[in-house]
Amino acid sequence: MAGAEIERLIQALAKLPGFGPRSARRAALIMLKKREALLHPLASALSDADRTVRACSTCGNLDSSDPCKLCGDARRDGSVLCVVEDVADLWALERAAVFSGRYHVLGGVLSALDGVGPGDLAIAGLLERAGASAVEEVILALSATVDGQTTAHYIADRLAEHGLTVSRLAHGVPVGGELDYLDDGTLATALKARRPI
Amino acid sequence: MAGAEIERLIQALAKLPGFGPRSARRAALIMLKKREALLHPLASALSDADRTVRACSTCGNLDSSDPCKLCGDARRDGSVLCVVEDVADLWALERAAVFSGRYHVLGGVLSALDGVGPGDLAIAGLLERAGASAVEEVILALSATVDGQTTAHYIADRLAEHGLTVSRLAHGVPVGGELDYLDDGTLATALKARRPI
Repeated sequence: MAGAEIERLIQALAKLPGFGPRSARRAALIMLKKREALLHPLASALSDADRTVRACSTCGNLDSSDPCKLCGDARRDGSVLCVVEDVADLWALERAAVFSGRYHVLGGVLSALDGVGPGDLAIAGLLERAGASAVEEVILALSATVDGQTTAHYIADRLAEHGLTVSRLAHGVPVGGELDYLDDGTLATALKARRPI
Repeated sequence: MAGAEIERLIQALAKLPGFGPRSARRAALIMLKKREALLHPLASALSDADRTVRACSTCGNLDSSDPCKLCGDARRDGSVLCVVEDVADLWALERAAVFSGRYHVLGGVLSALDGVGPGDLAIAGLLERAGASAVEEVILALSATVDGQTTAHYIADRLAEHGLTVSRLAHGVPVGGELDYLDDGTLATALKARRPI
Protein backbone atom coordinates (compact mmCIF):
# COMPACT_ATOMS: atom_id res chain seq x y z
CA MET A 1 0.00 0.00 0.00
CA ALA A 2 2.77 2.46 0.87
CA GLY A 3 5.91 2.90 -1.21
CA ALA A 4 9.05 0.87 -0.54
CA GLU A 5 10.77 3.87 1.09
CA ILE A 6 7.90 4.31 3.56
CA GLU A 7 7.89 0.58 4.34
CA ARG A 8 11.63 0.68 4.97
CA LEU A 9 11.24 3.65 7.32
CA ILE A 10 8.44 1.86 9.20
CA GLN A 11 10.58 -1.27 9.54
CA ALA A 12 13.60 0.70 10.78
CA LEU A 13 11.42 2.43 13.38
CA ALA A 14 9.70 -0.80 14.43
CA LYS A 15 13.07 -2.21 15.54
CA LEU A 16 13.45 0.44 18.24
CA PRO A 17 12.51 -0.58 21.77
CA GLY A 18 9.04 0.69 22.66
CA PHE A 19 7.86 0.65 19.04
CA GLY A 20 5.76 -2.01 17.38
CA PRO A 21 4.62 -2.16 13.74
CA ARG A 22 1.53 -0.08 14.47
CA SER A 23 3.19 2.74 16.41
CA ALA A 24 6.08 2.76 13.91
CA ARG A 25 3.59 3.30 11.10
CA ARG A 26 2.01 6.16 13.01
CA ALA A 27 5.40 7.76 13.72
CA ALA A 28 6.54 7.37 10.09
CA LEU A 29 3.37 9.00 8.82
CA ILE A 30 3.54 11.95 11.19
CA MET A 31 7.24 12.46 10.37
CA LEU A 32 6.48 12.53 6.64
CA LYS A 33 3.75 15.09 7.28
CA LYS A 34 5.76 17.30 9.63
CA ARG A 35 9.18 17.10 8.03
CA GLU A 36 10.57 20.39 9.33
CA ALA A 37 9.47 19.73 12.90
CA LEU A 38 10.15 15.99 13.20
CA LEU A 39 11.91 14.28 10.31
CA HIS A 40 14.73 16.74 9.63
CA PRO A 41 15.71 17.24 13.32
CA LEU A 42 15.77 13.48 13.86
CA ALA A 43 17.78 12.82 10.70
CA SER A 44 20.39 15.44 11.59
CA ALA A 45 20.51 14.36 15.25
CA LEU A 46 21.11 10.78 14.14
CA SER A 47 23.95 11.66 11.80
CA ASP A 48 25.55 14.06 14.32
CA ALA A 49 25.34 11.51 17.12
CA ASP A 50 26.72 8.81 14.86
CA ARG A 51 29.62 11.02 13.85
CA THR A 52 30.60 12.39 17.27
CA VAL A 53 29.52 9.97 20.00
CA ARG A 54 32.13 7.42 21.06
CA ALA A 55 32.62 5.25 24.13
CA CYS A 56 35.02 6.88 26.61
CA SER A 57 38.28 4.92 26.58
CA THR A 58 38.61 5.36 30.35
CA CYS A 59 35.18 4.61 31.82
CA GLY A 60 33.09 3.34 28.89
CA ASN A 61 30.49 6.14 29.07
CA LEU A 62 29.09 7.40 25.75
CA ASP A 63 29.96 11.00 24.99
CA SER A 64 31.06 13.26 22.17
CA SER A 65 34.46 13.74 23.79
CA ASP A 66 37.05 11.16 24.86
CA PRO A 67 37.79 11.15 27.80
CA CYS A 68 34.13 11.86 28.51
CA LYS A 69 32.85 14.91 30.38
CA LEU A 70 32.68 12.93 33.64
CA CYS A 71 36.25 11.59 33.38
CA GLY A 72 37.53 15.02 32.37
CA ASP A 73 35.83 16.78 35.28
CA ALA A 74 38.58 17.53 37.84
CA ARG A 75 36.00 18.29 40.56
CA ARG A 76 34.83 14.67 40.68
CA ASP A 77 36.24 12.50 43.45
CA GLY A 78 38.88 10.16 41.99
CA SER A 79 39.06 8.02 45.13
CA VAL A 80 35.66 6.36 44.60
CA LEU A 81 34.90 4.22 41.57
CA CYS A 82 31.31 3.23 40.87
CA VAL A 83 30.97 0.12 38.70
CA VAL A 84 27.79 -0.06 36.61
CA GLU A 85 26.51 -2.60 34.10
CA ASP A 86 25.48 -0.22 31.40
CA VAL A 87 25.60 3.42 30.27
CA ALA A 88 21.86 3.65 31.06
CA ASP A 89 22.67 2.86 34.73
CA LEU A 90 25.37 5.56 34.75
CA TRP A 91 22.85 8.06 33.36
CA ALA A 92 20.30 7.01 36.01
CA LEU A 93 22.84 7.65 38.80
CA GLU A 94 23.81 11.00 37.25
CA ARG A 95 20.15 12.03 37.00
CA ALA A 96 19.74 11.26 40.70
CA ALA A 97 22.83 13.47 41.30
CA VAL A 98 23.84 11.46 44.37
CA PHE A 99 27.33 10.36 43.36
CA SER A 100 30.27 12.60 42.62
CA GLY A 101 33.03 10.02 42.10
CA ARG A 102 34.14 8.27 38.93
CA TYR A 103 32.34 5.58 36.98
CA HIS A 104 33.31 2.37 35.25
CA VAL A 105 30.91 0.82 32.74
CA LEU A 106 31.24 -2.98 32.49
CA GLY A 107 29.17 -3.31 29.32
CA GLY A 108 27.09 -6.20 30.71
CA VAL A 109 27.15 -8.82 33.45
CA LEU A 110 28.57 -12.32 33.58
CA SER A 111 26.02 -14.79 32.27
CA ALA A 112 26.56 -18.49 31.76
CA LEU A 113 23.26 -18.67 29.87
CA ASP A 114 24.16 -15.91 27.39
CA GLY A 115 27.81 -17.01 27.21
CA VAL A 116 29.18 -13.78 28.68
CA GLY A 117 32.55 -14.41 30.38
CA PRO A 118 34.95 -12.04 32.20
CA GLY A 119 36.79 -11.43 28.92
CA ASP A 120 33.65 -9.95 27.35
CA LEU A 121 33.34 -7.25 30.02
CA ALA A 122 35.55 -4.25 30.81
CA ILE A 123 36.93 -6.01 33.92
CA ALA A 124 40.63 -5.81 32.98
CA GLY A 125 40.33 -2.03 32.64
CA LEU A 126 38.54 -1.87 35.99
CA LEU A 127 41.31 -3.81 37.78
CA GLU A 128 43.89 -1.52 36.20
CA ARG A 129 42.02 1.60 37.33
CA ALA A 130 41.38 0.15 40.80
CA GLY A 131 45.13 -0.51 41.10
CA ALA A 132 45.87 3.21 40.74
CA SER A 133 46.97 4.73 44.04
CA ALA A 134 44.17 7.33 44.11
CA VAL A 135 41.32 4.78 44.27
CA GLU A 136 40.19 3.90 47.80
CA GLU A 137 36.72 2.46 47.31
CA VAL A 138 34.93 0.53 44.59
CA ILE A 139 31.12 0.57 44.68
CA LEU A 140 29.53 -2.28 42.74
CA ALA A 141 26.25 -0.73 41.59
CA LEU A 142 25.02 -3.82 39.74
CA SER A 143 21.48 -5.13 39.35
CA ALA A 144 20.07 -7.23 42.19
CA THR A 145 19.64 -10.17 39.81
CA VAL A 146 21.45 -13.51 39.95
CA ASP A 147 23.77 -12.50 37.10
CA GLY A 148 24.37 -9.05 38.58
CA GLN A 149 25.25 -10.43 41.98
CA THR A 150 27.44 -13.17 40.49
CA THR A 151 29.35 -10.48 38.64
CA ALA A 152 29.64 -8.39 41.83
CA HIS A 153 31.10 -11.36 43.73
CA TYR A 154 33.51 -12.16 40.91
CA ILE A 155 34.76 -8.57 40.78
CA ALA A 156 34.99 -8.34 44.58
CA ASP A 157 37.18 -11.47 44.56
CA ARG A 158 39.44 -10.05 41.86
CA LEU A 159 39.71 -6.75 43.76
CA ALA A 160 40.55 -8.42 47.10
CA GLU A 161 44.30 -8.27 46.50
CA HIS A 162 44.20 -4.49 46.02
CA GLY A 163 43.25 -3.89 49.66
CA LEU A 164 40.40 -1.52 48.72
CA THR A 165 37.01 -1.02 50.30
CA VAL A 166 34.55 -2.85 48.05
CA SER A 167 30.86 -2.11 48.63
CA ARG A 168 27.52 -2.77 46.95
CA LEU A 169 24.23 -0.85 46.90
CA ALA A 170 21.81 -1.53 49.78
CA HIS A 171 18.91 -3.87 49.08
CA GLY A 172 15.52 -3.21 50.62
CA VAL A 173 12.14 -1.54 50.20
CA PRO A 174 12.19 1.06 47.37
CA VAL A 175 11.43 4.57 48.62
CA GLY A 176 7.73 5.19 47.99
CA GLY A 177 7.11 1.45 47.59
CA GLU A 178 4.23 -0.28 49.31
CA LEU A 179 5.03 -3.47 51.25
CA ASP A 180 1.92 -5.08 49.87
CA TYR A 181 3.32 -5.10 46.34
CA LEU A 182 6.85 -6.24 47.20
CA ASP A 183 8.13 -9.71 46.40
CA ASP A 184 9.17 -12.12 49.16
CA GLY A 185 12.88 -11.87 48.36
CA THR A 186 12.96 -8.09 48.77
CA LEU A 187 10.91 -8.27 51.97
CA ALA A 188 13.21 -10.92 53.45
CA THR A 189 16.32 -8.90 52.53
CA ALA A 190 14.82 -5.70 53.93
CA LEU A 191 13.92 -7.45 57.20
CA LYS A 192 17.33 -9.07 57.59
CA ALA A 193 19.11 -5.77 56.89
CA ARG A 194 16.86 -3.75 59.22
CA ARG A 195 18.37 -0.63 60.77
CA PRO A 196 17.84 1.00 64.17
CA ILE A 197 15.79 4.23 63.83
CA MET B 1 25.31 13.78 31.89
CA ALA B 2 25.26 12.84 28.21
CA GLY B 3 26.83 14.92 25.46
CA ALA B 4 24.84 17.59 23.60
CA GLU B 5 24.55 15.34 20.53
CA ILE B 6 23.01 12.53 22.58
CA GLU B 7 20.60 14.96 24.26
CA ARG B 8 19.56 16.31 20.88
CA LEU B 9 18.92 12.79 19.58
CA ILE B 10 16.85 11.96 22.69
CA GLN B 11 14.80 15.14 22.25
CA ALA B 12 14.18 14.47 18.56
CA LEU B 13 13.01 10.93 19.37
CA ALA B 14 10.87 12.08 22.30
CA LYS B 15 8.75 14.17 19.91
CA LEU B 16 7.54 11.08 18.05
CA PRO B 17 4.10 9.75 19.02
CA GLY B 18 4.42 6.80 21.38
CA PHE B 19 7.75 7.96 22.77
CA GLY B 20 8.32 9.79 26.05
CA PRO B 21 11.58 11.10 27.48
CA ARG B 22 12.35 7.76 29.13
CA SER B 23 11.71 5.50 26.15
CA ALA B 24 13.48 7.99 23.86
CA ARG B 25 16.57 7.75 26.08
CA ARG B 26 16.43 3.99 25.91
CA ALA B 27 16.04 4.00 22.13
CA ALA B 28 18.88 6.52 21.67
CA LEU B 29 21.21 4.42 23.82
CA ILE B 30 20.45 1.17 22.03
CA MET B 31 20.87 2.88 18.64
CA LEU B 32 24.29 4.23 19.64
CA LYS B 33 25.30 0.76 20.76
CA LYS B 34 23.95 -1.09 17.72
CA ARG B 35 24.74 1.38 14.99
CA GLU B 36 24.92 -1.09 12.09
CA ALA B 37 21.66 -2.77 13.01
CA LEU B 38 19.58 0.22 14.14
CA LEU B 39 21.06 3.69 13.68
CA HIS B 40 22.37 3.43 10.12
CA PRO B 41 19.23 1.77 8.66
CA LEU B 42 17.02 4.38 10.33
CA ALA B 43 19.21 7.29 9.19
CA SER B 44 19.23 6.10 5.58
CA ALA B 45 15.51 5.24 5.62
CA LEU B 46 14.75 8.74 6.90
CA SER B 47 16.79 10.48 4.22
CA ASP B 48 15.46 8.22 1.43
CA ALA B 49 11.86 8.73 2.54
CA ASP B 50 12.40 12.47 2.84
CA ARG B 51 13.88 12.62 -0.66
CA THR B 52 11.39 10.42 -2.49
CA VAL B 53 8.04 10.46 -0.68
CA ARG B 54 5.53 13.05 -1.87
CA ALA B 55 1.79 13.48 -1.59
CA CYS B 56 0.02 12.17 -4.72
CA SER B 57 -1.33 15.17 -6.62
CA THR B 58 -4.48 13.22 -7.51
CA CYS B 59 -5.61 11.50 -4.31
CA GLY B 60 -3.30 12.87 -1.57
CA ASN B 61 -1.81 9.48 -0.64
CA LEU B 62 1.88 9.47 0.33
CA ASP B 63 4.07 7.51 -2.06
CA SER B 64 7.42 7.66 -3.79
CA SER B 65 5.73 8.09 -7.18
CA ASP B 66 3.23 10.72 -8.36
CA PRO B 67 0.56 9.67 -9.27
CA CYS B 68 0.78 7.11 -6.49
CA LYS B 69 0.72 3.34 -6.99
CA LEU B 70 -3.01 3.23 -6.24
CA CYS B 71 -3.92 6.01 -8.70
CA GLY B 72 -1.63 4.48 -11.32
CA ASP B 73 -3.14 0.99 -10.97
CA ALA B 74 -5.43 0.51 -13.98
CA ARG B 75 -7.08 -2.54 -12.36
CA ARG B 76 -8.69 -0.41 -9.66
CA ASP B 77 -12.31 0.58 -10.15
CA GLY B 78 -12.47 4.24 -11.20
CA SER B 79 -16.24 4.44 -10.68
CA VAL B 80 -16.05 4.37 -6.85
CA LEU B 81 -14.26 7.07 -4.88
CA CYS B 82 -13.58 6.48 -1.18
CA VAL B 83 -13.06 9.70 0.79
CA VAL B 84 -10.84 9.35 3.90
CA GLU B 85 -9.65 11.86 6.45
CA ASP B 86 -6.02 10.86 6.51
CA VAL B 87 -3.39 8.71 4.80
CA ALA B 88 -3.44 6.45 7.88
CA ASP B 89 -7.12 5.67 7.17
CA LEU B 90 -6.29 4.89 3.54
CA TRP B 91 -3.56 2.49 4.71
CA ALA B 92 -5.99 0.86 7.16
CA LEU B 93 -8.51 0.23 4.36
CA GLU B 94 -5.76 -1.10 2.08
CA ARG B 95 -4.53 -3.46 4.83
CA ALA B 96 -8.06 -4.79 5.17
CA ALA B 97 -8.03 -5.32 1.38
CA VAL B 98 -11.79 -4.79 1.12
CA PHE B 99 -11.92 -1.88 -1.32
CA SER B 100 -10.68 -1.88 -4.88
CA GLY B 101 -11.78 1.58 -6.02
CA ARG B 102 -9.97 4.91 -5.85
CA TYR B 103 -9.25 7.02 -2.80
CA HIS B 104 -9.36 10.70 -1.96
CA VAL B 105 -7.52 11.96 1.13
CA LEU B 106 -9.09 15.09 2.66
CA GLY B 107 -6.18 15.87 4.94
CA GLY B 108 -8.40 16.42 7.99
CA VAL B 109 -12.02 17.11 8.91
CA LEU B 110 -13.94 20.35 9.31
CA SER B 111 -13.55 21.64 12.84
CA ALA B 112 -14.86 24.94 14.17
CA LEU B 113 -12.80 24.43 17.32
CA ASP B 114 -9.51 23.94 15.48
CA GLY B 115 -10.39 26.54 12.84
CA VAL B 116 -10.40 24.04 9.95
CA GLY B 117 -12.67 25.27 7.14
CA PRO B 118 -13.53 23.73 3.74
CA GLY B 119 -10.63 25.68 2.16
CA ASP B 120 -8.12 23.85 4.37
CA LEU B 121 -9.20 20.42 3.10
CA ALA B 122 -8.85 18.81 -0.33
CA ILE B 123 -12.56 19.30 -1.03
CA ALA B 124 -12.18 21.31 -4.27
CA GLY B 125 -10.10 18.47 -5.74
CA LEU B 126 -12.71 15.96 -4.61
CA LEU B 127 -15.56 17.87 -6.30
CA GLU B 128 -13.51 18.08 -9.48
CA ARG B 129 -12.79 14.33 -9.43
CA ALA B 130 -16.40 13.50 -8.54
CA GLY B 131 -17.52 15.56 -11.53
CA ALA B 132 -15.62 13.29 -13.92
CA SER B 133 -17.97 11.10 -15.93
CA ALA B 134 -16.41 7.83 -14.70
CA VAL B 135 -17.31 8.34 -11.04
CA GLU B 136 -20.65 6.82 -9.99
CA GLU B 137 -20.38 6.51 -6.21
CA VAL B 138 -18.60 8.43 -3.47
CA ILE B 139 -18.12 6.59 -0.16
CA LEU B 140 -17.50 8.93 2.79
CA ALA B 141 -15.30 6.78 5.05
CA LEU B 142 -14.92 9.41 7.78
CA SER B 143 -14.66 8.94 11.52
CA ALA B 144 -17.91 8.54 13.46
CA THR B 145 -17.11 11.67 15.47
CA VAL B 146 -19.03 14.95 15.46
CA ASP B 147 -16.40 16.61 13.24
CA GLY B 148 -16.19 13.59 10.94
CA GLN B 149 -19.96 13.43 10.46
CA THR B 150 -20.22 17.22 10.00
CA THR B 151 -17.63 16.92 7.25
CA ALA B 152 -19.51 14.00 5.68
CA HIS B 153 -22.76 16.00 5.60
CA TYR B 154 -21.00 19.04 4.17
CA ILE B 155 -19.43 16.99 1.38
CA ALA B 156 -22.69 15.13 0.70
CA ASP B 157 -24.43 18.51 0.26
CA ARG B 158 -21.75 19.76 -2.12
CA LEU B 159 -21.92 16.49 -4.11
CA ALA B 160 -25.72 16.56 -4.40
CA GLU B 161 -25.68 18.48 -7.68
CA HIS B 162 -23.51 15.82 -9.35
CA GLY B 163 -26.28 13.20 -9.16
CA LEU B 164 -23.98 10.55 -7.71
CA THR B 165 -24.64 7.86 -5.13
CA VAL B 166 -23.13 9.16 -1.87
CA SER B 167 -22.79 6.65 0.95
CA ARG B 168 -21.14 6.38 4.34
CA LEU B 169 -19.73 3.43 6.32
CA ALA B 170 -22.20 1.48 8.45
CA HIS B 171 -22.24 2.22 12.17
CA GLY B 172 -22.79 -0.57 14.68
CA VAL B 173 -21.18 -3.19 16.87
CA PRO B 174 -17.52 -3.77 15.88
CA VAL B 175 -16.86 -7.35 14.75
CA GLY B 176 -15.48 -9.24 17.77
CA GLY B 177 -16.76 -6.53 20.11
CA GLU B 178 -18.64 -7.38 23.29
CA LEU B 179 -21.92 -5.55 23.90
CA ASP B 180 -21.00 -5.13 27.54
CA TYR B 181 -18.13 -2.79 26.68
CA LEU B 182 -19.92 -0.71 24.04
CA ASP B 183 -20.99 2.87 24.66
CA ASP B 184 -24.67 3.84 24.61
CA GLY B 185 -24.38 5.77 21.33
CA THR B 186 -23.04 2.77 19.41
CA LEU B 187 -25.62 0.44 20.97
CA ALA B 188 -28.47 2.80 20.06
CA THR B 189 -27.19 3.17 16.49
CA ALA B 190 -26.76 -0.59 16.11
CA LEU B 191 -30.27 -1.26 17.41
CA LYS B 192 -31.84 1.36 15.15
CA ALA B 193 -29.99 0.04 12.10
CA ARG B 194 -30.78 -3.62 12.84
CA ARG B 195 -30.89 -6.00 9.88
CA PRO B 196 -33.02 -9.10 9.21
CA ILE B 197 -30.95 -12.29 9.53
